Amino acid sequence: MNQAEEFQRIGKRLRQEGLVGANFGNMSVRDGTGFLITRNGAFLDCPKNLVYVPLDGAVPPEASSEYRVHREVYRLSRHLAVVHAHPPHAVAISLHRDCINPIDSEGEMFCPTIPVVTGPPGSMEMAKRVASTLKDGGAVIVRGHGTFCGARSLEEGYVLTSIVEHSCRVLLLSRVK
Amino acid sequence: MNQAEEFQRIGKRLRQEGLVGANFGNMSVRDGTGFLITRNGAFLDCPKNLVYVPLDGAVPPEASSEYRVHREVYRLSRHLAVVHAHPPHAVAISLHRDCINPIDSEGEMFCPTIPVVTGPPGSMEMAKRVASTLKDGGAVIVRGHGTFCGARSLEEGYVLTSIVEHSCRVLLLSRVK
Amino acid sequence: MNQAEEFQRIGKRLRQEGLVGANFGNMSVRDGTGFLITRNGAFLDCPKNLVYVPLDGAVPPEASSEYRVHREVYRLSRHLAVVHAHPPHAVAISLHRDCINPIDSEGEMFCPTIPVVTGPPGSMEMAKRVASTLKDGGAVIVRGHGTFCGARSLEEGYVLTSIVEHSCRVLLLSRVK
Amino acid sequence: MNQAEEFQRIGKRLRQEGLVGANFGNMSVRDGTGFLITRNGAFLDCPKNLVYVPLDGAVPPEASSEYRVHREVYRLSRHLAVVHAHPPHAVAISLHRDCINPIDSEGEMFCPTIPVVTGPPGSMEMAKRVASTLKDGGAVIVRGHGTFCGARSLEEGYVLTSIVEHSCRVLLLSRVK
Repeated sequence: MNQAEEFQRIGKRLRQEGLVGANFGNMSVRDGTGFLITRNGAFLDCPKNLVYVPLDGAVPPEASSEYRVHREVYRLSRHLAVVHAHPPHAVAISLHRDCINPIDSEGEMFCPTIPVVTGPPGSMEMAKRVASTLKDGGAVIVRGHGTFCGARSLEEGYVLTSIVEHSCRVLLLSRVK
Repeated sequence: MNQAEEFQRIGKRLRQEGLVGANFGNMSVRDGTGFLITRNGAFLDCPKNLVYVPLDGAVPPEASSEYRVHREVYRLSRHLAVVHAHPPHAVAISLHRDCINPIDSEGEMFCPTIPVVTGPPGSMEMAKRVASTLKDGGAVIVRGHGTFCGARSLEEGYVLTSIVEHSCRVLLLSRVK
Repeated sequence: MNQAEEFQRIGKRLRQEGLVGANFGNMSVRDGTGFLITRNGAFLDCPKNLVYVPLDGAVPPEASSEYRVHREVYRLSRHLAVVHAHPPHAVAISLHRDCINPIDSEGEMFCPTIPVVTGPPGSMEMAKRVASTLKDGGAVIVRGHGTFCGARSLEEGYVLTSIVEHSCRVLLLSRVK
Repeated sequence: MNQAEEFQRIGKRLRQEGLVGANFGNMSVRDGTGFLITRNGAFLDCPKNLVYVPLDGAVPPEASSEYRVHREVYRLSRHLAVVHAHPPHAVAISLHRDCINPIDSEGEMFCPTIPVVTGPPGSMEMAKRVASTLKDGGAVIVRGHGTFCGARSLEEGYVLTSIVEHSCRVLLLSRVK
């Protein structure tokens, strides 16, 4: 399976599970001294041409507008893939917390503490906070915005995104007494 | 991709995301001195023949029963497409508010104030209110009924519909303390 | 499109919208002095062979175990199709009410009062109550069990089922203050 | 339909209904003096090669990491298939209860008492508790983790999983007053 097919395979799963809607979310994989990222405005289940962004140097205008986060993550960590999604329960719960502690088994095992950071989407400020947080872990939520997961592959990044949303959903559902 | 295929592509996405159920919702695109609209009772993911409605003149009986809203929008604004859906969280939240202010990043960016208007579905009264509201923005909710989004294309109208529903869902989920 | 294909087309939509899960739900269409109904245990999106049940006379053992409801509806009314589903919001809300009054536009228009009846699933007692209620309307909920919609076609019965669930979902969501 | 196709058919349904996300969940069928189980990390809708695990003897490293539960179930009961999923409402409700009593018709009929057991996922301790509980019934929830259903076939195990989740969802929805 080539890179384009792998992006599409994972994009379809992200969408089928409701982890992204419309043309939101973006994904990248490390590639040499840069990374391949989805286009700005692309539907993740139909990503078409990927865009190559170097870690240093000019960024093609068609790259996802959140390329700064991906670039900072690759600069600061050894992650080989980054998945950004907008899972509704994770977004909602992040509005009231500085960090999320799952109470389901998978969350406790794979992301016992999910940090919440702040900053305007697309900004360098937010990019640096996400990247700095992902040095020590795989998942972070930008308050009111969405998840960023650093991983060894797109599949692993998607799986972690799914766990974070499942954990946040269980947390919210467990409040209904 | 021709017009019919584009309507179907967007209709499928509206349905997959749960933004419309059954044979609800309708869509149109501006075309010369009129517009192409989905048939009355059509499933948006399977729209079949579209109906041409002139801005002035007789309306074919098979046109969506909400053609008045679409016609008024094109008469009063420069929008090139209109998407009407029944997203459940947007409908629910509209029952108690005169306007909705998203608290998630995408809502804050793309529809910081979502007006709520009232009026019987299909009526000229409601059509004029929706059209008047869409002169200054892209999204409006008719209380207890659904969203109307004016845009440059069906895709843009669908994306905005998806943002509105995401924002309303996050608003409701954030109430679970 | 033949009968088997029509059952499958509607069954797929019922399932895609989450109106039935697993192998629940059943559907029938009037046919001469009897009706065609889905098999007991059939998946509605994959109904395979339909079963003919006469209004009077022996019932084939492979017919849906809820054939009594369908038979009573055809005996007492002019409905040409019956759709039974297990929509979760309609089931939940039926537990605390004797009748449901939608507050969304579609519910107010198409099912302003949805009666709730009681009785053990599969029993003659429940069958008679559902049939008696459907004489005057298209939709009824059996408490804690599911919806029965009488209509002129499977499509119409499915659309009504979808409206009932949408209305109940909006009612429940509107409680989140 | 061969075994691999049957696993995939059921895996697709589990995923479509939201009963498992990402690469979670696992399934097995009894086969002679052992059982066939999904691979560790496999997507249930795309299970690829199954793994044979003997009731006694070495376990291939590619077997699902929850093989212990499946093995104990087959050792202690006559079940011919085991389905493990992570349905969100069942997981959430299990956090606060020692046993769940459905209030919807299907739950009352097919799983009137759903026991909740505890124990670390993958552990022998948890495996023994699940297996011991499944001797007398078909469904159990491991607190904060997921469901295990013992049955005569994968289809029956999936149907029971779907009922458990439906019942737990109705229970939670019925709290919204």
